[in-house]
Amino acid sequence: MKNTTPQLDAEALYKTLATQIQHGLQSIPDAAIVGIHSGGAWLAERLAADLGLTARLGFVDPSFYRDDYAERGLRPDVKPSQIPFEVEGATILLVDDVLYTGRTTRAAINELFDYGRPAKIMLAALVDRGERELPIAATFVALHHSVAPNESIVLHRGTNGKFSLTVEHA
Amino acid sequence: MKNTTPQLDAEALYKTLATQIQHGLQSIPDAAIVGIHSGGAWLAERLAADLGLTARLGFVDPSFYRDDYAERGLRPDVKPSQIPFEVEGATILLVDDVLYTGRTTRAAINELFDYGRPAKIMLAALVDRGERELPIAATFVALHHSVAPNESIVLHRGTNGKFSLTVEHA
Repeated sequence: MKNTTPQLDAEALYKTLATQIQHGLQSIPDAAIVGIHSGGAWLAERLAADLGLTARLGFVDPSFYRDDYAERGLRPDVKPSQIPFEVEGATILLVDDVLYTGRTTRAAINELFDYGRPAKIMLAALVDRGERELPIAATFVALHHSVAPNESIVLHRGTNGKFSLTVEHA
Repeated sequence: MKNTTPQLDAEALYKTLATQIQHGLQSIPDAAIVGIHSGGAWLAERLAADLGLTARLGFVDPSFYRDDYAERGLRPDVKPSQIPFEVEGATILLVDDVLYTGRTTRAAINELFDYGRPAKIMLAALVDRGERELPIAATFVALHHSVAPNESIVLHRGTNGKFSLTVEHA
């Protein structure tokens, strides 16, 4: 069951987030961008293009690294990670669509550290839905928006490349 | 070289932090407290006594878990961790004296996960000096206070059990 939520204007939120990041990364010309599959990867792709950072763009799918991997098992759509730049010493902007418990963020950070020791990892999220289970906070966030525990906020990318957000009931 | 900083009233900050935590943990009667050696351990000890949580009090020394362990090496004063409660499913308040880059916090979280999968980890810090290198944020913090990169904020515990804070130059 899907519920379209016109108040979550994904395109407007994306532009807000991109503006925040552009200001925040002004003094860091060699920042790398890493998107978390799949919504964060779409955002990272577009951010890299819009901010001229495509030379240092990567993707992670931290499904293997999540602490509940044993109970979730391997999803059929797990993507291999692609980190085509030197992580050691890098300043990395990690991008996710929805920040929730923080467990995915922790998993993505641990995955990045398996490649090397970054100088700095920042986090950008389109929506922060709160209810954190780990002391993680986004450096850049376009909207704080709570939903019920049995709901999820899902990012979609249309064939025209435009984003939309829906709140879906479990 | 030491510089006493009378504006950092450690005892007043401790009381502020304890009050924040008391309110924050009201709905979590079985919360566990884990202090990070050595300043965070002192704070955790006193918090556990003041808040009636001594039954679930632990300590970690995440020196082995820090990502710069190779370059820092083993300090002679590394303490063994003591986690005398079931971490799996627990709600844990991790306590540090000064929150800075976030690397110690990440190391402590990873150490806790080696014992089990907590339901929730919150973070309390007496002072947040900013300059984060990881997207970590304290749930409870008594004071935000920046110092120069070559300075450190150091917590002391007197023989009377009272806390003091100094800003020390490297």
